Amino acid sequence: MTTAADTLLITNIGSLVTNDPTVGEGPLGLVRDAAVVIEGERIAWAGPATAAPAADTAYDADGRAVIPGFVDSHSHLVFAGDRTEEFNARMSGRPYSAGGIRTTVAATRAATDAELEANLTRYLREALRQGTTTFETKSGYGLTVEDEARALRIASAHTDEVTYLGAHIVPPDYADDPAAYVALVTGDMLDACAPHARWIDVFCEKGAFDGDQARTILTAGKAKGLHPRIHANQLSYGPGVQLAVELDAASADHCTHLTDEDVDALANSSTVATLLPGAEFSTRAEWPNARRLLDAGATVALSTDCNPGSSFTSSVPFCIALAVRDMGMTPDEALWSATAGGAAALRRTDIGRITRGAYADLALLDAPSHVHLAYRPGVPLVSAVWRRGLREV
Amino acid sequence: MTTAADTLLITNIGSLVTNDPTVGEGPLGLVRDAAVVIEGERIAWAGPATAAPAADTAYDADGRAVIPGFVDSHSHLVFAGDRTEEFNARMSGRPYSAGGIRTTVAATRAATDAELEANLTRYLREALRQGTTTFETKSGYGLTVEDEARALRIASAHTDEVTYLGAHIVPPDYADDPAAYVALVTGDMLDACAPHARWIDVFCEKGAFDGDQARTILTAGKAKGLHPRIHANQLSYGPGVQLAVELDAASADHCTHLTDEDVDALANSSTVATLLPGAEFSTRAEWPNARRLLDAGATVALSTDCNPGSSFTSSVPFCIALAVRDMGMTPDEALWSATAGGAAALRRTDIGRITRGAYADLALLDAPSHVHLAYRPGVPLVSAVWRRGLREV
Ligand SMILES: [Zn+2]
Ligand SMILES: [Zn+2]
Repeated sequence: MTTAADTLLITNIGSLVTNDPTVGEGPLGLVRDAAVVIEGERIAWAGPATAAPAADTAYDADGRAVIPGFVDSHSHLVFAGDRTEEFNARMSGRPYSAGGIRTTVAATRAATDAELEANLTRYLREALRQGTTTFETKSGYGLTVEDEARALRIASAHTDEVTYLGAHIVPPDYADDPAAYVALVTGDMLDACAPHARWIDVFCEKGAFDGDQARTILTAGKAKGLHPRIHANQLSYGPGVQLAVELDAASADHCTHLTDEDVDALANSSTVATLLPGAEFSTRAEWPNARRLLDAGATVALSTDCNPGSSFTSSVPFCIALAVRDMGMTPDEALWSATAGGAAALRRTDIGRITRGAYADLALLDAPSHVHLAYRPGVPLVSAVWRRGLREV
Repeated sequence: MTTAADTLLITNIGSLVTNDPTVGEGPLGLVRDAAVVIEGERIAWAGPATAAPAADTAYDADGRAVIPGFVDSHSHLVFAGDRTEEFNARMSGRPYSAGGIRTTVAATRAATDAELEANLTRYLREALRQGTTTFETKSGYGLTVEDEARALRIASAHTDEVTYLGAHIVPPDYADDPAAYVALVTGDMLDACAPHARWIDVFCEKGAFDGDQARTILTAGKAKGLHPRIHANQLSYGPGVQLAVELDAASADHCTHLTDEDVDALANSSTVATLLPGAEFSTRAEWPNARRLLDAGATVALSTDCNPGSSFTSSVPFCIALAVRDMGMTPDEALWSATAGGAAALRRTDIGRITRGAYADLALLDAPSHVHLAYRPGVPLVSAVWRRGLREV
């Protein structure tokens, strides 16, 4: 005999973001004076508190806001090493003979599995405390068959959204023969990595991989059952976005330098434009123009790009505040992009929304409205988090 | 018989900021592998862990960084009312017939003492969780004799650093006769407020109070034993900074629009330039140029300006990250300004540093170095806080 899962009623929610326009107001499906019922790991019901069904236990949200847990669809969290001094020197205008990403590659290769896993779980826990209930993470600091496969194996113990990024940079050992590295990435490395990953990604940029190399790599990945996503058009104009659309990539990430044709291509595709303002913040770079993408009709996601080199923030609320201040997003759009948008960038409909049947991933804010995530920048407003129905924070 | 206060040894500190150059490296007085001994509410000892004296109990910092608690020398926390929709409309490009500060004045006047105090203590607690162990706060949303005095009375139950800001704006009831309001601010209102405050402040700006009015108000305050500080040169060039120096104000706050003469005046005075980047962030305004002030030799403090209209952040770490990215401060300078700089802006030497005899106000970071406050923007890194020797967070 199977007993029904326990049910939990979260009630007295001042403002509930469902991301379901059929349930509430506007694209966020906003419901005031709302309630949510969780059954096991899923949402069983969401709507006005006065209409809520009975449940086994109740939690009083005391008029505060509840939102879907953040979906951080772009991070690089399997790494070791410390680049604090590199950051400090850059921000202090001091010269520093930094190895950049190579520093992280060397430290990651030298680390034990246990060290990498401890590092990863530490950042995941930190992100969870800030409301992130789903995260994607990538390899890309191993750059050998063994080290890439190991990174993905470690990551896959903690998330379903694992991305093979052997094509992060051409490692120093292949500097004289990048073609041989592409052959490795599409050959033995792919064979070793594919079983541990859902996605394949390429850093398509001057100095990393060009459009033809990226197409070769992503096509090889597709043949092994991996779905593409691309680091595209971050530092300069380039072929990344067009390639992403051509290959039906789930997402083109960064999208800082876009031609009108790039914007049109995204708007007329199911490829999401994932914007990563933490990177522009930490490198003092030009902001991506979210407004232009939204006005054209593109789907926009907002993620952290959390990594030790160019964006060492795990805070989606911080990215929301930046997106509103500097990228032309409204507070509502930024919230949508950090939840439902992230889900779209992972081609998921079971997360990023608070609707019947979705995973019960949600965050309670110490604020009456999701708008406070932008209105109160830097303030840790996430006061409780449920993931798959379990209270985690 | 008096027994000695209990002593606590905090040891295994990876990186300790003392702000005492005689104890450690550079202006931050940085000590690696450090320890601190707290006796009662004061620091008894700080230095290399290997040289630490014995203590009654010990706390293992596990290699993490310890810094002085933040000194937030500029906030406006005695208020009521909700301006979320005003912010939302501004950031969404929607028209909104906002009353601006008048909305807050009306709500503050209408609130009960208990409501104001609950609001205040909520934000203080929130700031404490983010490492702020000293805060200044102001009146300025009452603008009647009774409401200003009440705000200061409520604030003074929670901090020694209370500022009378009757001259925040000319309230609507005096719109036709600002001189009469200045007479009130320097007359009955001052009499009612002086007993509850240490400081007097004026918003010296076009549309608020001009240089002559500000001089009149601050001079009257000085005669009643209040020491001046000024909201100066925030929205435009003006006489505020020169007046601050003329009157030996402890601080000229905002300092966004400065002439070379203003910078020189600050550099050759004991008036601190307090920069408030939360305001520029939230209003999308031009950044103050901290580099210019520092290079000229001015003392710079960094504070939140926490208030519901123009800067609703209580996060000093967020302000540090902005100061480093956008105002030309190094991570070291920003940390100093948010601790010892804030203390200087309050003319205090017993806070903002971890040296023998100072109050035992300190924050433990979940990071190996204070640099992470800028390197990891938005991430809540404060993991423990002691205030006057008591563990508060
Ligand atoms: Zn990335
Ligand atoms: Zn102010």
